[in-house]
Amino acid sequence: MLNDGLDLAFHALSVATRREMVARLASGPLTVSDLARPLPMSLPAVLQHLAVLEGAGLVHSQKAGRVRTCRLDAAAVARAERWLSDQRAQWESRLDRLAEYLASNEGGSK
Amino acid sequence: MLNDGLDLAFHALSVATRREMVARLASGPLTVSDLARPLPMSLPAVLQHLAVLEGAGLVHSQKAGRVRTCRLDAAAVARAERWLSDQRAQWESRLDRLAEYLASNEGGSK
Repeated sequence: MLNDGLDLAFHALSVATRREMVARLASGPLTVSDLARPLPMSLPAVLQHLAVLEGAGLVHSQKAGRVRTCRLDAAAVARAERWLSDQRAQWESRLDRLAEYLASNEGGSK
Repeated sequence: MLNDGLDLAFHALSVATRREMVARLASGPLTVSDLARPLPMSLPAVLQHLAVLEGAGLVHSQKAGRVRTCRLDAAAVARAERWLSDQRAQWESRLDRLAEYLASNEGGSK
């Protein structure tokens, strides 16, 4: 389940246009029209990308009257970030242990 | 170019098996055989996943004699992590500004 979430999140982020949408939404909620305006593609194409981001839980949207507003889910971004930082921390702690081991053997005999 | 790098990195991480390979390599370099052993798939399938990870720059491998050893590129992991943390930081600074704005208007007239 968590894995599925990361599958979808990383897949959603693997396309530059969708990362651009996430980056713009990081500055605050936007209507679909405002989100679409600077993007060099049709509105249906934008809506497809938005659907992928929503499917991954990275973005939520809500309709009020005729206006749909999109909002970043910072917690979902943080979950993907945490997975990566966990791997990096694991790698770094290994390097630390290696350095300790080398230091403890420094100048030793044999 | 940087975008391409993130495209490939996030795409590589969008499959649970490849994340498992990254997670195991975070504990230290492994030979291809050791990396493949616990995975419930054929060696050719593992090699295909490894090729995607290498293509994304997340893993490097080197052959010595008949043994190929795989090593995580922690800097590549950190680049993907940084992109996500930048978005989260942007989102949080917006919330901070919003809170300041609300505080500065608290109890104001009108």
